[in-house]
Amino acid sequence: MEEKVVYVPVETLREFMYQVFLKCGVPEDDARICADVLITSDIRGIPSHGVNRLKMYYDRIKRGILSPVTRFEIVRESETTAVVDGHHGMGHVIGYKSMKLAIKKAREYGMGAVAVRNSSHYGIAGYYALMAAEEGMIGIAFTNARPSVAPTFSVEPMLGTNPIAFACPTDEEFPFCFDAATSITQRGKIEVLARVGKPTPAGWVIGRDGTLATDTEAILKGIPEGKYALLPLGGPGEEMGGHKGYGLSVMVEILCAALQSGAFLKDLSGFDERGNPRPHQLGHFFMAIDIAHFVPLDEFERTVGEILRKLRAAEVAPGAERIYTAGQKAYLAAKRAQKKGIPLNESVQRDLKILQEELGIKEVPLPF
Amino acid sequence: MEEKVVYVPVETLREFMYQVFLKCGVPEDDARICADVLITSDIRGIPSHGVNRLKMYYDRIKRGILSPVTRFEIVRESETTAVVDGHHGMGHVIGYKSMKLAIKKAREYGMGAVAVRNSSHYGIAGYYALMAAEEGMIGIAFTNARPSVAPTFSVEPMLGTNPIAFACPTDEEFPFCFDAATSITQRGKIEVLARVGKPTPAGWVIGRDGTLATDTEAILKGIPEGKYALLPLGGPGEEMGGHKGYGLSVMVEILCAALQSGAFLKDLSGFDERGNPRPHQLGHFFMAIDIAHFVPLDEFERTVGEILRKLRAAEVAPGAERIYTAGQKAYLAAKRAQKKGIPLNESVQRDLKILQEELGIKEVPLPF
Repeated sequence: MEEKVVYVPVETLREFMYQVFLKCGVPEDDARICADVLITSDIRGIPSHGVNRLKMYYDRIKRGILSPVTRFEIVRESETTAVVDGHHGMGHVIGYKSMKLAIKKAREYGMGAVAVRNSSHYGIAGYYALMAAEEGMIGIAFTNARPSVAPTFSVEPMLGTNPIAFACPTDEEFPFCFDAATSITQRGKIEVLARVGKPTPAGWVIGRDGTLATDTEAILKGIPEGKYALLPLGGPGEEMGGHKGYGLSVMVEILCAALQSGAFLKDLSGFDERGNPRPHQLGHFFMAIDIAHFVPLDEFERTVGEILRKLRAAEVAPGAERIYTAGQKAYLAAKRAQKKGIPLNESVQRDLKILQEELGIKEVPLPF
Repeated sequence: MEEKVVYVPVETLREFMYQVFLKCGVPEDDARICADVLITSDIRGIPSHGVNRLKMYYDRIKRGILSPVTRFEIVRESETTAVVDGHHGMGHVIGYKSMKLAIKKAREYGMGAVAVRNSSHYGIAGYYALMAAEEGMIGIAFTNARPSVAPTFSVEPMLGTNPIAFACPTDEEFPFCFDAATSITQRGKIEVLARVGKPTPAGWVIGRDGTLATDTEAILKGIPEGKYALLPLGGPGEEMGGHKGYGLSVMVEILCAALQSGAFLKDLSGFDERGNPRPHQLGHFFMAIDIAHFVPLDEFERTVGEILRKLRAAEVAPGAERIYTAGQKAYLAAKRAQKKGIPLNESVQRDLKILQEELGIKEVPLPF
């Protein structure tokens, strides 16, 4: 079970990903965006949505269900709102341009929102929320996703992990950034357990028979066949608030699908009725709120900073080390990553070797 | 432990509450709003935020920390945004007028948002979200609240139950309405357990010693002294996603406090440093999104309806009865309430008797 992890410098990895996207036919500027979204995930300590997904994008482009050239079409627009059709292009590019548009509208009118149809996997939702925070705004980003989560009192995977991301500036060194699936966990974390041979905690996953599944290998094998479903935040039933995680997930689905009259739930599986691959048709919803329209930005930043400092100074639970606020772990991870590089496990190393070979990438030598 | 519950017709109860507010010095139009917000909670099957709180408002007005006459002051305004000072008036009136303002802005510009300072307990957040849904919009309402919830890895009550409410129209008989605390539960539910002599489920509440508390009587006695704290959605620690409920709660705190440079966390306790009662200084945040700015309203309603119907038609877990969507239980409860009336337990009956006597209410005879 011992893994040989290799640490790769951030800029090496960013450049390698940029080259991969270029060779896949993604235009230069777009390839920069895609690489930046992925490396940001790794830098922030979220390995599940970074370079480890690189081959997935490559495979989808090869399979013809993801368009390397992104046609970003604004199909409808008002002072504060827009509906965008991504035409099955790169989700990162669609997300980046959509949030830019929301920010522009918010700058002028106080708020901006963009609903997106026909997009694809766009990496971490937090990236887009952070774009607004860097502009002195509140950024909010949602996306729907492939069906994997069961509604409360169901065992069938119907909803995606439907994350909510919220970011804003503070007077501290790093922004507040909440970025989380509305399910308890996501598949990437179960894959991590598989690599170290550990069982899945009871409560994360439900089987078709209604029992809480813990056999990690069986779960990973059974998920694609719909034999298992992830549970919403709050767990099974209602006693611990599972209906709240479920409700939040449906809220995300509504915002991402219904404001652009697009696909939803099982139609996001990436397969048609006969089991043939097709575009995932994801929907997103982006929102920017210009803080200066409400209060002076520095006042807002001070208030938020005060809230966060008071929370971290609360009484620590016996046995616990410290209290964090959202975005703080990512900040600490980023410091480590800049110094030490990004840790790549053997499976990711293998993927990158394949990409290097198949695409003939000589510009960036891999240190393994 | 047997309780004598009396069912009171909806309109009797509404009228009684209206009279109480009037006699407390609330102006006629405002008293109508307050009574409507409270009765809506009871009608929707949320007894914790309805008539059972009536005496609390009365007590606060008597104590001088809640102003029966609401001075609703717009201190700053732009096309889509406003900051409101409620001057410690009635939260329901402040909430109602704020959401009206957000809706007006959204009608013209696509979106509207109002941040509120110096408000007070406004009943169910869902009421305000539903106001927008009735206007063909998405409504979102947040509020902060008295400190009762511990951050992840803490045992100290720092955050309020900080609810998120989201409502929108559908093509069905009732709107989608998600309205939930970002904690697993709230005090009202523990009070219900006390009345029937049941223990509190392990995971709802944490003691200062870090253990999960289950002694319902001890919890209710200890909460006002800060001996216990509610846990965020996801429970203690991070394994089941407790940091997600915590993060959502902080998001709500930021939206409700920092966009209006107001009070937050422990300053919302209703007491000053010397333990003297003072206004709660709550903050709210309201948002309206005009659907027609994105897609035709009927198209949106159909998409949402389809999503909800597919969710309810998913495979039911063995042993479970059916799958609900948010707002459905409230719809069923409302049907029952209109037919059967609102059930009042003995403690609420006692409160209403006191109010009847102290305020000399003869206009509405109570049927107990």
